[in-house]
Amino acid sequence: MLKKRKLARGVAIAGAGMSKFGMFGDKNSKDLFAEAFSEMLASIDKGADPNDIDALYVGNFSNDYFVHQSHWGPIVSDLIGLTPKPATRTEGACASSALAFREGVFAIASGFYDIVLVGGVEDMSKRTTEEVAEGLALATVPYEGEVGFTFPGVFGALATAYFAKYGASREDLMNITIKSHNNAPLNPKAQFPFTIREIMEMRKKSMTRKGLPVPDWSDEKAFLSDPSVNPAVAWPMHLYDCCPISDGASCMLLVAEDIVSNFTDDPIYVAGIGQGSGRGLHASDSLTSFEATRYAAREAYGMAGLGPESIQFAEVHDCFSMAELVHVEDLGFFEPGKGFRAIAEGATALNGPVPINTSGGLKCKGHPVGATGVSQLYEVWTQLRGKAGDRQVPKENLRVGAAHNLGGTGGTCTFTILERR
Amino acid sequence: MLKKRKLARGVAIAGAGMSKFGMFGDKNSKDLFAEAFSEMLASIDKGADPNDIDALYVGNFSNDYFVHQSHWGPIVSDLIGLTPKPATRTEGACASSALAFREGVFAIASGFYDIVLVGGVEDMSKRTTEEVAEGLALATVPYEGEVGFTFPGVFGALATAYFAKYGASREDLMNITIKSHNNAPLNPKAQFPFTIREIMEMRKKSMTRKGLPVPDWSDEKAFLSDPSVNPAVAWPMHLYDCCPISDGASCMLLVAEDIVSNFTDDPIYVAGIGQGSGRGLHASDSLTSFEATRYAAREAYGMAGLGPESIQFAEVHDCFSMAELVHVEDLGFFEPGKGFRAIAEGATALNGPVPINTSGGLKCKGHPVGATGVSQLYEVWTQLRGKAGDRQVPKENLRVGAAHNLGGTGGTCTFTILERR
Repeated sequence: MLKKRKLARGVAIAGAGMSKFGMFGDKNSKDLFAEAFSEMLASIDKGADPNDIDALYVGNFSNDYFVHQSHWGPIVSDLIGLTPKPATRTEGACASSALAFREGVFAIASGFYDIVLVGGVEDMSKRTTEEVAEGLALATVPYEGEVGFTFPGVFGALATAYFAKYGASREDLMNITIKSHNNAPLNPKAQFPFTIREIMEMRKKSMTRKGLPVPDWSDEKAFLSDPSVNPAVAWPMHLYDCCPISDGASCMLLVAEDIVSNFTDDPIYVAGIGQGSGRGLHASDSLTSFEATRYAAREAYGMAGLGPESIQFAEVHDCFSMAELVHVEDLGFFEPGKGFRAIAEGATALNGPVPINTSGGLKCKGHPVGATGVSQLYEVWTQLRGKAGDRQVPKENLRVGAAHNLGGTGGTCTFTILERR
Repeated sequence: MLKKRKLARGVAIAGAGMSKFGMFGDKNSKDLFAEAFSEMLASIDKGADPNDIDALYVGNFSNDYFVHQSHWGPIVSDLIGLTPKPATRTEGACASSALAFREGVFAIASGFYDIVLVGGVEDMSKRTTEEVAEGLALATVPYEGEVGFTFPGVFGALATAYFAKYGASREDLMNITIKSHNNAPLNPKAQFPFTIREIMEMRKKSMTRKGLPVPDWSDEKAFLSDPSVNPAVAWPMHLYDCCPISDGASCMLLVAEDIVSNFTDDPIYVAGIGQGSGRGLHASDSLTSFEATRYAAREAYGMAGLGPESIQFAEVHDCFSMAELVHVEDLGFFEPGKGFRAIAEGATALNGPVPINTSGGLKCKGHPVGATGVSQLYEVWTQLRGKAGDRQVPKENLRVGAAHNLGGTGGTCTFTILERR
């Protein structure tokens, strides 16, 4: 029985921003954060003076490794003119900036600060793909990395276990990929803003132009089943099951509920926060579920006084197609083993009952690891404010959305519920 | 004018522990943290059930670099049986675990958690000295590292500036080294538990044994002036002005003030917390002061409602002898430019009016960077409880002590005031 958690003081979001995600040879972490920060400032309905920010939390996984620079708190603090105010880096692998968000919430709820900037950044593309893979392995727990378990391998193992247990197949994972790619062109920040059908047509044109024989792909699934365009990485994880290498930044201004009306008449409130830690696959009692996610969900639902049925849409950590499937079950949106059928029926599509990853998800929006957590919350905030443009969730009375962030192989998981009152 | 900060809920320390500090070929980060955790549990007067811990914060600078493993939150969480509860890593270079401490304070003060473990760990000795120097350079801000500014170089520049401005000399820095080495043998956890006089006598014996001519060192300063035993690293920083490379861990159990009587009848309270960020030397308006320290001190003094005159003893971040001199002035214990004379008169000695670094400091106790912040707080807690043995501050009515932690070249500074009521 988990104790019900609550905060002594409510916290709301006054504004948010994110850089475009992608591989940018000409932009470093500071350029990217500046892009996110500028958009965040412009997003605050009644404006804000950056000098009023009390403190900064910035999530970063391992720019230590990627660009040989650690200690990002003061670097970002200097960039935005915040020194000598405090700046703290949080690290929880791919969940690094969700941790920054949570610490910002605590800092305000504690009564110590009123206005806190939280965000994340990662600059991964300056290294070769092989080096990035080596860097990401820093985030696996010991035993996994040591025996050569890469991230595609881990989620391949989960998929194999899920297939054996529940009778799903690669085709079910393709549904997830196709759905995310359907949302991506509607998101101007996305790294891959193309549907699978568009990619298929581009490929056909390119082959025709080169005078090559053009395969007769009947539909998206036929395309994704062709190993010449979608080779296996770690079966059953193929290329299009995996998120890309990305650079990017995101940030968000958190303010105490009691002063949020100074910033906006349309604030989004932090209704529930949750976080859990995990032991790694070698010690897990299940290969089709992450205990850390389930714990984070219990904490957040408990605080919010809400259950999964109240979540109208969510961003979940789809580093791999298989990850999305595990999470939507762990978070209670679907019963264990039933998610893949619901997805096949369109349950998670933009116009479905529980739209998932309306941003295109990590798969298409991109995954600059330290920036991802707050970028997910940016999407939920944007949707709740009704400002998601062509990808706006088509529901009346959109009120409650959530974001789930996962670090490593489930070592760190967070779940955050946002609410428009 | 800095706003006065306060916490909605008070926080106290129920217990604390640290590993021995040193270079341990046969111990890794988990071994070291286990050592600290065991001592912490045993230190809780009325006992505690580890299952009651709500969350963990662990400071680590860059085990990413030192042992090619990041994401230490869940690793430590698994080690002590805390999973699936949340575990967060904080990083602020050499101030990493002071940040963990502060986040633990916020998490409890926010009302969300009641019992939080905070600590730090670093495992540096598995790399060569050259590699460690490269790793530490990750913590400098850009521009400094890029132009080859090493840490001894930075503090050498500060010393040169201080000498020129205030008329101090190398001899004044030797007073700091000698004082720290006087305290170290009284600390069973210290990496170098020897006075300078003892080291001098050991050196004499060794030279005699080898049939070498024994120099006629009249006293400690003559010894430290001999370049054959104390060569320059980056003038005027010589070998004995620099802290060593160390492995170690530290931790502390924070609990809400309203429940601390369940754990002990002699709690130590968190009276003031402060943190600041800095831009780096290239942008500093002074080479004899850290703005981040001054900001952190203002925050902490403001919250505690105390001034420097109330601090009865302190641990300050003496990564170099020169650093200690700058800090005791920045924290207000002595006026700018007057610290070195006060130190020469014994003001910071164990039996002086403001004992500094009773633990031996980073210089002699060791400096496993991620573990240092909480290890300083461990020393203050131990002293306030009257359990520091032979190095106990010989004052009646010991009530208020403080710890100052510095990361990088002043990029992150914290100041924490603890109180026995």
